[in-house]
Amino acid sequence: MPLNRQIHLVSRPAGQPGLENFNLVSSPTPALAEGEVLVRHHYLSLDPYMRGRMNDGKSYAQPQALHQTMIGGTVGEVMESRNSGFAAGDKVVGMGGWQEYGLVSVAMTGMLRKVDDSRVPLSAYLGAVGMPGVTAYYGLVHIIAPKSGDTLVVSAASGAVGSAFGALAKARGCRVVGVAGGADKCAYVVDALGFDACIDYKQHADAASLSAALHAVCPQGIEGYFENVGGMVMNAVLPLMNAFGRVAVCGMIAGYNGVPIPMAAPQLILMQRLRFQGFIVSEHPQVWPAALAELGGLVASGALRARETIAQGIESAPQAFLGLLSGRNFGKQLVKLI
Amino acid sequence: MPLNRQIHLVSRPAGQPGLENFNLVSSPTPALAEGEVLVRHHYLSLDPYMRGRMNDGKSYAQPQALHQTMIGGTVGEVMESRNSGFAAGDKVVGMGGWQEYGLVSVAMTGMLRKVDDSRVPLSAYLGAVGMPGVTAYYGLVHIIAPKSGDTLVVSAASGAVGSAFGALAKARGCRVVGVAGGADKCAYVVDALGFDACIDYKQHADAASLSAALHAVCPQGIEGYFENVGGMVMNAVLPLMNAFGRVAVCGMIAGYNGVPIPMAAPQLILMQRLRFQGFIVSEHPQVWPAALAELGGLVASGALRARETIAQGIESAPQAFLGLLSGRNFGKQLVKLI
Repeated sequence: MPLNRQIHLVSRPAGQPGLENFNLVSSPTPALAEGEVLVRHHYLSLDPYMRGRMNDGKSYAQPQALHQTMIGGTVGEVMESRNSGFAAGDKVVGMGGWQEYGLVSVAMTGMLRKVDDSRVPLSAYLGAVGMPGVTAYYGLVHIIAPKSGDTLVVSAASGAVGSAFGALAKARGCRVVGVAGGADKCAYVVDALGFDACIDYKQHADAASLSAALHAVCPQGIEGYFENVGGMVMNAVLPLMNAFGRVAVCGMIAGYNGVPIPMAAPQLILMQRLRFQGFIVSEHPQVWPAALAELGGLVASGALRARETIAQGIESAPQAFLGLLSGRNFGKQLVKLI
Repeated sequence: MPLNRQIHLVSRPAGQPGLENFNLVSSPTPALAEGEVLVRHHYLSLDPYMRGRMNDGKSYAQPQALHQTMIGGTVGEVMESRNSGFAAGDKVVGMGGWQEYGLVSVAMTGMLRKVDDSRVPLSAYLGAVGMPGVTAYYGLVHIIAPKSGDTLVVSAASGAVGSAFGALAKARGCRVVGVAGGADKCAYVVDALGFDACIDYKQHADAASLSAALHAVCPQGIEGYFENVGGMVMNAVLPLMNAFGRVAVCGMIAGYNGVPIPMAAPQLILMQRLRFQGFIVSEHPQVWPAALAELGGLVASGALRARETIAQGIESAPQAFLGLLSGRNFGKQLVKLI
């Protein structure tokens, strides 16, 4: 039995999480029962939604249980199978959590999906061709529903969701403007991802200044906004929204640690007849097949070259997660486990 | 030629409007040209949206021009017609503005609609069976789209829009809770309009206190919110919204004078996957016939007994309008002109 190392949540943060909220635990992998599958994880996905799960409050999902392995998406290889649907050597994506091996119970094998890593790298199934990519697709296609020529803005543009959003929007003939933190991220968003412009929010002390910079690159206003961040960026974008604009609310990372992030002028919703829609992509399983097909094609063709920040070893996951929450990652944050 | 008295906007308010922003002007009614119709107004409608038109900024409509008659809905009787579509004695509803007589040009006769005052009082065509009623209908039916048994909340519940909203929602089997200002308005909302409960926001110093009072009468949470007010009331309602709740944003009277009315916790849009939709009813002409038919039936049957506050004489319109903005009216605010 290989030894399996896991990261448990051991306490709930008040505000900014710290390393003390996590603990590294080791135990042997158990023997398989009938119907079970043992997966060796190659990559663990770190995502902003995990911060929400660390709280105990009212949200869209159950809180992460204390003294249990942190939840998270994983890709890896089947090591052993007592399930007719899987064979040793299969590459699979699933919700294996922050650990080196995942024992997938019979009840959970429906969450495990075989993938082909011949045209798309395995890690992409956690990013552009996985949950973040489908998140971008749902917000763009089913909420913003743009016409060719529309101007769209996305915050956290260099991240896994933002980069997929940009490629999907360009494929629909839209003008796409990103907001990101730092000159290097902004250069990447324009040069590698093909956005029409990107504004560095760190160069702006307040929403009015950021809004003026956005206005300069969106002189005709904005038809659609994909919100990953909230706070100052939202308050900078909203005054530029055109009539009947749509706002897909996917994340509000600026407020995940309990910092207040008020919307300064909700009367704009009325004045411009805006539509806001919050969503969580796992509640929309019907869109996944079409989304993954398009995203896989964009990655395979090179139209979507999503950047990754890769930490090494399960023991590095907590530190990498804290970095993600403060924007120190560049593109999709992964932990490599082999 | 009868003398026509009009109220002009002569300056734009900074913040709270005052009587000095208006002026009373008299002039003879002109002779009719071919195709024109002269209407004697019986009632002028005063509505919160007019405050927005007094500003010069970006909004959904052209600002009210200075030194021109204030815009507004009117009902009255055709005195003279050189248009084959109308005859002297016809009762008509239109956008005649703040004046005693309206000369309706050929281009504008499409805005003039003949009405039947045998089953519904003429003044109701400015309220329950007019723009305010259709506003309630659109937000309820086309944005909130409730199921029987849903709990709905409406702010400014005793007003023209709120009272129509309550009757339409009860007709669909919903539980309806109002928010209004003062014990007398709340008693009317429950006793005369048939709401299930009404909370007096004036009894609460902050959103948390108001929210607790709302929670007591909405123990299962809220599926739909019809927003007329904004500010503290919105911040009290949003934490009680259930997953996939809908918010119809019709008005934000709390912010019309420039007072900031931030939304305290926009992250609730994400956490509860809420949909917000701002709207202005004149942009949805296709819903008017069905809405007016249902609303006319509710008024004729007595199911909707909408209260009116009636000021007398065109010269009283500015003062009555200021009262409307500060909530001194009780139900639909009208000015009687005959």
